[in-house]
Amino acid sequence: MDAEDRLRPQFVAEVLDAVHEGDVDTARTLVAPLHPADVADLIELARADERDGLVAALAELVDADVIAEMNEHVRELLVEQMAPERVAEIAGELETDDAVAIIEDLEEDEQRAVLRAMEPDDRAAIEEALTYGEETAGRLMQRDLIAVPEHWTVGQVIDYLRSDEELSNDFWEVFVVSPNHHPVGTCKLSTILRSPRRVRVSDIMAHEQTLIPVDMDQEDVALRFQKYALVSAAVVDGSGRLVGMITVDDVVHIIQAEASEDVLLLSGAGEGDINEPVRDSYKARVRWLMANLLTALVASTIIRVFEASIERLAILAALMPIVAGVGGNAGTQTLAVTVRALATNQLTGSNRWRAVGREMRVALLNGITIAALVGVAVTLILHSPQLGAVIAAAMLFNIVIAGFAGVLVPVTLERLKADPAVASSIFVTMVTDSMGFLIFLGLATASGLTG
Amino acid sequence: MDAEDRLRPQFVAEVLDAVHEGDVDTARTLVAPLHPADVADLIELARADERDGLVAALAELVDADVIAEMNEHVRELLVEQMAPERVAEIAGELETDDAVAIIEDLEEDEQRAVLRAMEPDDRAAIEEALTYGEETAGRLMQRDLIAVPEHWTVGQVIDYLRSDEELSNDFWEVFVVSPNHHPVGTCKLSTILRSPRRVRVSDIMAHEQTLIPVDMDQEDVALRFQKYALVSAAVVDGSGRLVGMITVDDVVHIIQAEASEDVLLLSGAGEGDINEPVRDSYKARVRWLMANLLTALVASTIIRVFEASIERLAILAALMPIVAGVGGNAGTQTLAVTVRALATNQLTGSNRWRAVGREMRVALLNGITIAALVGVAVTLILHSPQLGAVIAAAMLFNIVIAGFAGVLVPVTLERLKADPAVASSIFVTMVTDSMGFLIFLGLATASGLTG
Repeated sequence: MDAEDRLRPQFVAEVLDAVHEGDVDTARTLVAPLHPADVADLIELARADERDGLVAALAELVDADVIAEMNEHVRELLVEQMAPERVAEIAGELETDDAVAIIEDLEEDEQRAVLRAMEPDDRAAIEEALTYGEETAGRLMQRDLIAVPEHWTVGQVIDYLRSDEELSNDFWEVFVVSPNHHPVGTCKLSTILRSPRRVRVSDIMAHEQTLIPVDMDQEDVALRFQKYALVSAAVVDGSGRLVGMITVDDVVHIIQAEASEDVLLLSGAGEGDINEPVRDSYKARVRWLMANLLTALVASTIIRVFEASIERLAILAALMPIVAGVGGNAGTQTLAVTVRALATNQLTGSNRWRAVGREMRVALLNGITIAALVGVAVTLILHSPQLGAVIAAAMLFNIVIAGFAGVLVPVTLERLKADPAVASSIFVTMVTDSMGFLIFLGLATASGLTG
Repeated sequence: MDAEDRLRPQFVAEVLDAVHEGDVDTARTLVAPLHPADVADLIELARADERDGLVAALAELVDADVIAEMNEHVRELLVEQMAPERVAEIAGELETDDAVAIIEDLEEDEQRAVLRAMEPDDRAAIEEALTYGEETAGRLMQRDLIAVPEHWTVGQVIDYLRSDEELSNDFWEVFVVSPNHHPVGTCKLSTILRSPRRVRVSDIMAHEQTLIPVDMDQEDVALRFQKYALVSAAVVDGSGRLVGMITVDDVVHIIQAEASEDVLLLSGAGEGDINEPVRDSYKARVRWLMANLLTALVASTIIRVFEASIERLAILAALMPIVAGVGGNAGTQTLAVTVRALATNQLTGSNRWRAVGREMRVALLNGITIAALVGVAVTLILHSPQLGAVIAAAMLFNIVIAGFAGVLVPVTLERLKADPAVASSIFVTMVTDSMGFLIFLGLATASGLTG
C-alpha cells in the first residue's frame, strides 16, 4: 500500500503472477490480510481477462463485502457470470442498501431468478426497496435500525441491545418512536452511554431531528447530511412512519459521485468511469461532440459572412481564434464557479442577481487586462495600432459576454428545473465562439481595416 | 425552507426587511427556530453591506456554532470586526478543529491577540494545532476523545463515561490504548452497548484500525475515510502516540471541496467560491487567461504560416475552428475522466497503460464518427469532395491526438507529483488547437486545394 492507500503496482503484479502460475496459495496469502475495499481494488486493477482467474483463485476471499465495495461496472461483469443462487447468498449477507445496489443493475429475468433464490425476509426487503425510484432515499436506506418507545429508560434500551444477538452492529443513534411508529426524537449512543440507567430516553433525546422522505433524491440527501453534519438519519414514508435509516458511510460515496458528476457533465463525458465499457463511453461522448459540431458550424457560418474581408486581410484568420478561445475560457471559469455554487446551494433565489453582478465585475477586470495585453502585443508585433485596437475591443466585449453567459445560462437552466451542468457548456461555448468571431471580424470590417 | 433545504428568498427578504425597519424582535422570532447551519446560510445570503446590521440585530443568535458553519470568506469579514476577546470566547466554545479553522485565517497580530485572550488549555491546544501544516490531519483533528486502557471492562468504560460531566458528547468510537498511549484497538459504541459489563474491552475491540498520521494531507484523509467507510479515526504522531481524532463530519466537507476543486482547477477558476472577494477571483482567473492567451498566440503563429493559402481559399478560415474546437472538446472529455480517476485512486500505476489504450479506442470511435459527419457535410454544402476529405482526415487525427493528450498529460503530471487538475487543460487545449490548425491547413495546402 502506498502513502495514498493505493495498492502498489508491484503487489498487484505479484498476485497476478502467482495466479497465472497456478500458485493459488501464494496469491491467497498475499491477499488474505487486505481490507475488503482493497480486495475490490485489486480485482478492478486486474485486466478484464485476468479477473475471472483471479476471482476463482481467491475463492472465498472474494466475499459479500468485497462485492459490495467493487466498482459497479466491474461488479456487473462478475455478477453476470455467477449462478443466481450465489448472487442471492451474497445479497443475503449484505445490508439492504448494498444488496439493492447489486441487484438493481441485473437484467430483469436475472433479477427475478436471484430474488426467487433469496430468503423470504431478505427478498421482501429488497423488493420493497426496488419499488422506490432509482437514486432516492428508499434505495439508499437500510431497514436494520434500532427504534425504541418513548417511555423506555436508558437501562431498558441497554438491556434490549444486549439481549438480541440478531441485531446489526452498524448503528450510531437510536430512534425514539411513538406507538404508531412515527419518529419523535433521536439519541446518540454517546448520550445513552453517559446517562444513568433510570433516565427516560424521552428526557435525553434530541427533539429536533432530520427526517428524510423516502422519495428524496440522493443528491439532496447528501446535501442534508453535509449541511447538518449528520451521522445517521431516519427515513419516513408518506404518512410519517419510520421505514429505514441512512448512515453517513453510504452518503460519502454520493457526495463524491455528485461532485465528480459535475466535472464530467460539464465536459460532456457522461458517467466518465474508467471501468465503463468502451461502447458506453463512446455513445455518451459522441453525442456531445455532435452537439459541439453543430455549434461549431454556426460559428463557421458567421466566419463565412466575412470571407471577403479575410481574403483581403488573412491575418484576421490568424487572430480570430484568440478572441474566441480566451473568451471561451473565461466563460468556462464563470460556468464552473456557478455550477458548483448551485450544486452546493450557495447560490439561491436570494443572491442570484448579486452573483451576476459579481461575475460581471470579475469579467470587466479580466477583460480590461487581457484586452490591453493582446492590443499592445498585436500593435507591436504587427505594427498596426488599428488592428490592435480592434482586437482589444473585441476581446473585452467577448470576455464580458462570456461572464454574462457563464452565470446566466446555468442559473436559467436551474430555474427551468434542468441540470445546469448538462447543457450549459455547449451554450456558453456557442456564445463565446460566435460572438468572438462576429465582433472581431465585424469591427475589423466596419473600421475599414480590410478597406 | 424549500425541498432542497435552501432558505426561501421570501424568508430571507422578510428577515432583512425586519432588520432594516429596526424591528429586531420580528427578526429574532423568525431566526430563532433555525439550525446554526441555516443561520449561517442566512448571513451568507445577505448582501455584504446588510450583514453587520443583521448580525447586530440577531446578537446572541449568532453563536459559536453559527460562526463555525459559515463560509470562510463571509466569516473572515465578520471576525475581522470583532474584538479579540469575543473571537477568543467563540473559539473557546468550539472543538479544536473548528476553532483552528477560524483562527488560522486571521492576520498574525490578530491571531496573537486572540490567543492571548483564550483560556490556557484552549490556547495550548490551538497553538499545537497551528504547528501542523495547513490542510493536514493535525489541523483537522479534535483533541477531545475517549481513550481507555486495555484492561478495562465494559462496565468500567460506562462508569467512566457517566462520571465525567466535562467529556464531549461527540464521539462514536472509544479508542483503546496501551500504557504509553499507543492505540491498540477501537470499540464502536454499539459494540460497547451490546456487551455485558464484565467483558474486557480488549476482547471486543477491533484490532485492525486505521491510524492517521498527524501530517497526512487532508485529501488523503478524506479518501481513506471514504474507502474504509470510517466514522472516526485515531490520529497518531511520529512516535505512534494517540494525539487526536478525526470524525466523518469534518471529512465530508473536504470530500465535497476536493471534488469541486477539480472542476474549478480544470477551468482555471481558482478557489471559485462565490463569496470570495472580487479581487481574489480576478487574480486567480486572469493568470489563467494569460496562460491561455499565450497558447492562443502559438496557435495563431501556426495559422500565419498558412496565410497565403487562406488568402487564396478563405473558406479554410471558416472551417478550421471546427477542427480545433471539436478536438478541444474531445480532449476535455478525456481529461475530465482521467483527472477524476486519478483523484479517486481508480487510476494507478497498475492500470495506467490500460487506461491509455481504453481512451485511444474511444477516441478512434469518436474520431471516425465525427470525421464522417463533417466530411459528408462539407462535401454536400460546399460541393467539394476534396475539402470534405481533408477536413475529415484532420478531424480524425485531431480527436485521436486529443484523446492521447487528454489521458497522458494528467497521468504524467501526477507522476511528476504535480496536481493533474491544475495545468492539464492548458496543455491539452494548446495541443488540440495547434494540431487542429496545423493538420487541417497543412493537409489543405499539401493536397493542392489552395492551388
